[in-house]
Amino acid sequence: MNFIKLESAIRDKKSFLCVGLDPDLNRIPSHILKYDDPIFEFNKIIIDATKDYCVAYKPNLAFYEKLGPKGLESLEKTLKYIPENFFKIADAKRSDIFNSASMYADTFYDYFDFDAVTISPYMGVDAVKPFLRKNKCAIILLATSNSGASAIQNISTSSGQPLYIELITEISKWGNENNIMFVVGASRTDEMLEIRKKAPNHFFLVPGVGAQGGDMKIVCKNGLNKNIGLLVNMSRAIIYASSGNDFGKKVNSVTVEIQKEMQLLLQQYNIV
Amino acid sequence: MNFIKLESAIRDKKSFLCVGLDPDLNRIPSHILKYDDPIFEFNKIIIDATKDYCVAYKPNLAFYEKLGPKGLESLEKTLKYIPENFFKIADAKRSDIFNSASMYADTFYDYFDFDAVTISPYMGVDAVKPFLRKNKCAIILLATSNSGASAIQNISTSSGQPLYIELITEISKWGNENNIMFVVGASRTDEMLEIRKKAPNHFFLVPGVGAQGGDMKIVCKNGLNKNIGLLVNMSRAIIYASSGNDFGKKVNSVTVEIQKEMQLLLQQYNIV
Repeated sequence: MNFIKLESAIRDKKSFLCVGLDPDLNRIPSHILKYDDPIFEFNKIIIDATKDYCVAYKPNLAFYEKLGPKGLESLEKTLKYIPENFFKIADAKRSDIFNSASMYADTFYDYFDFDAVTISPYMGVDAVKPFLRKNKCAIILLATSNSGASAIQNISTSSGQPLYIELITEISKWGNENNIMFVVGASRTDEMLEIRKKAPNHFFLVPGVGAQGGDMKIVCKNGLNKNIGLLVNMSRAIIYASSGNDFGKKVNSVTVEIQKEMQLLLQQYNIV
Repeated sequence: MNFIKLESAIRDKKSFLCVGLDPDLNRIPSHILKYDDPIFEFNKIIIDATKDYCVAYKPNLAFYEKLGPKGLESLEKTLKYIPENFFKIADAKRSDIFNSASMYADTFYDYFDFDAVTISPYMGVDAVKPFLRKNKCAIILLATSNSGASAIQNISTSSGQPLYIELITEISKWGNENNIMFVVGASRTDEMLEIRKKAPNHFFLVPGVGAQGGDMKIVCKNGLNKNIGLLVNMSRAIIYASSGNDFGKKVNSVTVEIQKEMQLLLQQYNIV
């Protein structure tokens, strides 16, 4: 799935929601644990409950790798269960030399059929190039939502700009808004404004709304562009909305509310 | 295994060699492909052929994940096959928020029993802290061996220092030479000198000698410290030394030569 289709899906569903599929055996409803593959059962219910109100799914690899080979099997089944026309992001935050990065690209694109992979920029272009295939996308960490991020990402460079801005200049030599997105945390409100000025046409993947406390209205104010340009990820606030037998229903109603909020914002900015 | 044991193993074996276990189905000897688990068979032969002449093993996760769940099974068997008293490095180059980084730490330390994991520094302390357990070690990318690395890592900061040096100041708040190592590529000769000045007591993991063209003598000149402080990784030059039926013998003789070169250098610097 490419950005044209993603934008079209957002307009159709009036939602720029990405659901983070981060299943933790310690947190999923206990009645699910009886299944042979509780991770996949949990994800199925989440996907069924959210698919009409979101446009993307983002499994974080940490949650699957923790379970060893069985975890990767659950991931594989999950990817096959996600319907057509969803943007599928491997939240893997990989970074390696060209040879190894190419293998990761094969893994995520060919084996699992993801559309995009999150990448750390520190190793430079070699780590990113293998992910820039046709209709595929590298999502590069710029300003992440975690508390320790700015100690590194906002280091002041000799040009007078913070590192995360300086990186955009370098990254623009590697690819463009058709094959690169940026991770910009919802809590990084000032940074999002600055990044939007420097990268007016790129899509942003925005974590940190919901459980991490980011504000959707501010994200829209600072991040929306003429092609929408925003994909807001929410994980815990949706997938752990309830631990009861009918948690699918609760997940559904939470997601419906989020979609309504997104629709209002898209209307307010005359996008739909 | 901690650094005291690592240093002791290096003195015993007169070798600071780490063997990269990066098995590629397209490159391993064809007669191995007939086994049920060719990756594990290949690794077993490599381990048997090298264990008397090296102190560490470093599987790169890209090579195992490419094969899906089966690849992780091969990795698990490989880790179990590595004898006691080897320093086992997961070359994973991970980087994530605290919650996810903790899961990766559980995966690599508890599930696979690695001693250390390579980590990208861009997300800050949150991505590193979970890896700083007792007798375990985070190996942080500073100056990597790939061609595109310096465009990012040598960005000049407002303090007048390049980014990779500025990072050491920040990283020194996260941990110390007892739980943090640095990745410094053999090709980054100037950077290694500068990093050694700023981090006199840290161990360096040095890729890029061998297939990538780095020079062992220069690495020793610029990188050795009073506790040795160097672990040189070689992968392709060793594991693909031959594709014949007796490739184990060839791998062994190549490794013996590398150990001899290391012993001479350790003697030259009065370390053994």
